Amino acid sequence: MEEWTVKVNHSAVKKEKPKTDQLEFGRVFTDHMFIMDYSVPLGWHDPRIVPYEPLTIDPSAMTFHYGQSVFEGLKAYYTPEGDIHLFRPEKNLQRLNRSNDRLCIPPIDEAFILQAIKQLVYLDKEWIPTAEGTSLYIRPFIISTEPFIGVAPSHQYKLIVILSPVGAYYKEGINPVKIAVENQYVRTVKGGTGEAKTGGNYAASLKAQELCAQKGFTQVLWLDGLEKKYIEEVGSMNVFFKINGKVYTPALNGSILEGVTRNSVIQMLQYWNIPVIEEKLAIDDLYQAYLDETLEEAFGTGTAAVISPIGQLSWENKDLYINEGKTGKISKALYDTLTGIQYGREKDPFDWIEKVTKKNTVKQ
Amino acid sequence: MEEWTVKVNHSAVKKEKPKTDQLEFGRVFTDHMFIMDYSVPLGWHDPRIVPYEPLTIDPSAMTFHYGQSVFEGLKAYYTPEGDIHLFRPEKNLQRLNRSNDRLCIPPIDEAFILQAIKQLVYLDKEWIPTAEGTSLYIRPFIISTEPFIGVAPSHQYKLIVILSPVGAYYKEGINPVKIAVENQYVRTVKGGTGEAKTGGNYAASLKAQELCAQKGFTQVLWLDGLEKKYIEEVGSMNVFFKINGKVYTPALNGSILEGVTRNSVIQMLQYWNIPVIEEKLAIDDLYQAYLDETLEEAFGTGTAAVISPIGQLSWENKDLYINEGKTGKISKALYDTLTGIQYGREKDPFDWIEKVTKKNTVKQ
Repeated sequence: MEEWTVKVNHSAVKKEKPKTDQLEFGRVFTDHMFIMDYSVPLGWHDPRIVPYEPLTIDPSAMTFHYGQSVFEGLKAYYTPEGDIHLFRPEKNLQRLNRSNDRLCIPPIDEAFILQAIKQLVYLDKEWIPTAEGTSLYIRPFIISTEPFIGVAPSHQYKLIVILSPVGAYYKEGINPVKIAVENQYVRTVKGGTGEAKTGGNYAASLKAQELCAQKGFTQVLWLDGLEKKYIEEVGSMNVFFKINGKVYTPALNGSILEGVTRNSVIQMLQYWNIPVIEEKLAIDDLYQAYLDETLEEAFGTGTAAVISPIGQLSWENKDLYINEGKTGKISKALYDTLTGIQYGREKDPFDWIEKVTKKNTVKQ
Repeated sequence: MEEWTVKVNHSAVKKEKPKTDQLEFGRVFTDHMFIMDYSVPLGWHDPRIVPYEPLTIDPSAMTFHYGQSVFEGLKAYYTPEGDIHLFRPEKNLQRLNRSNDRLCIPPIDEAFILQAIKQLVYLDKEWIPTAEGTSLYIRPFIISTEPFIGVAPSHQYKLIVILSPVGAYYKEGINPVKIAVENQYVRTVKGGTGEAKTGGNYAASLKAQELCAQKGFTQVLWLDGLEKKYIEEVGSMNVFFKINGKVYTPALNGSILEGVTRNSVIQMLQYWNIPVIEEKLAIDDLYQAYLDETLEEAFGTGTAAVISPIGQLSWENKDLYINEGKTGKISKALYDTLTGIQYGREKDPFDWIEKVTKKNTVKQ
């Protein structure tokens, strides 16, 4: 880690915080943000915490034109004891660098950025909500800012971290969703950017998501872009199926995002001695398991919902009702244990939690 | 066309214009830009021409996170008589709306935006360079500006048009390039966003482009994302091959961008009674034509270069030298005729030119 210090420019005003029962996702932001610049002579430089405020960016900045950008998403949680927890933040920063590599963005110093995130979270810790299931969402992102509209990697970037207090994902307890298999649109394909957390993947998903919402579904289940035969992801989550006592998830193949929750679920299942198999998973085989009555549970995994049980799956005019549309036992156990670790209610056998304390944030 | 009027706020300062011999592509911008906003209650509203200046945008604006953006590129040319020409601008605005549809961005009023572009170009007409091969590049783009980091179509957008004087693409006459067939990375796939002019496609292309430049090639030739067998595009251009007296280009298939120059080349070849065939084009068949000595010419087409002859094509350690690495007759004739029409040196049998005059711009 280089010897950087984060300059802090404290906000003169403290904004009003939203009431707990009015918390949404991603609409309200805290008093401060972290910024760091990249230029070709200087590399990454000038790390600073400043008041949350609009960015001033040239209209020719590359990010507006050619989508050279990456992002991450993680959360800070208050424990009942008043500790502040991050959940495996180093995994997000490792992935940010993998995304950077795919998008030709210069790598960041992961250890330093983690320190900077801790410092920012600690500074705005009054914004971390304390009610059941609430948290502070942390959004690091990098945009290409060179004022040049040629198609080439930018020579200038900004890394920014913003924070948003978010409400409980399940306001009335964990609840299964209705998913539709997407047959027309494709999220990405091997050799594309599917493994990277970059805007273009999400932009590409909007149309299918809009059409499926019109038909009353919550998310789409993406098939592979090559043969439209193999299961990839559900919405912006990874996906798991419990079939005949074993848990299956699509193997990472170059087009599936490597989720931190996905990895945690796999480790947790192994810890419980439940067989978990990562392999190519055909939608045909899933349907056969349904007909054979061996498809026991299905769920998505992601930072927002942690575990999102799938109660109904629609595919080519067939409706699969999974576990009678109810949350399965494994889904529930995973949800309870993972959120238990995140909120400090359960012990953390994997050393996944990183505490944010006054001591371990960078000296101000 | 709705009854809109473009408000004009004239720039107090007139920036210094670059010298003709220092003109590059896309680094210098004119004194003014056009902006129009979209919001859910108002729709597209407040069209205005303002001094070219940085945008002030919230760090949570969707465009920075989820890549929901589209753009276009076209040019204004000065004729020897002092007329200002646009080349088929309505095609760009039609495509902008097709891109909008794919990206869940509300449609624009094409006729009105064309008028606004003319008004902007006319206002900054002193920026149109007059030397051989130079022009004023016009970049309309739309970004999603809602301050919300949920994955969903934005409820707020900005449509912006900026102008950049650009130098001649070929400073020393039209010149063939070296192209490498890309076998690892993929630009897009059917069901993806390849038909749309959206940032994510260009972000996805950077890595392959960087690797091919390191090996001394100018551009990559993209194969289809499904079988990596069929030719799609070259760099950010469409591609044509003359084989045994006939001209072939990949048929539009859902992942190829429908280029305005591509369409113009097809029409021009038909006008000349040269057979032109749009079909699925296997790289294997192209190589066979090369071995048979029937591969006579190859060239890319796009707004920037108009025609970019391909002198060498590298594929799996094989080097194909096309037309002895020289610009072919058809390539040259297309380049001369298309640029001739654009600059008003040749007659325009297709009615492709749209003049920009004081009279036909919106009343100020």
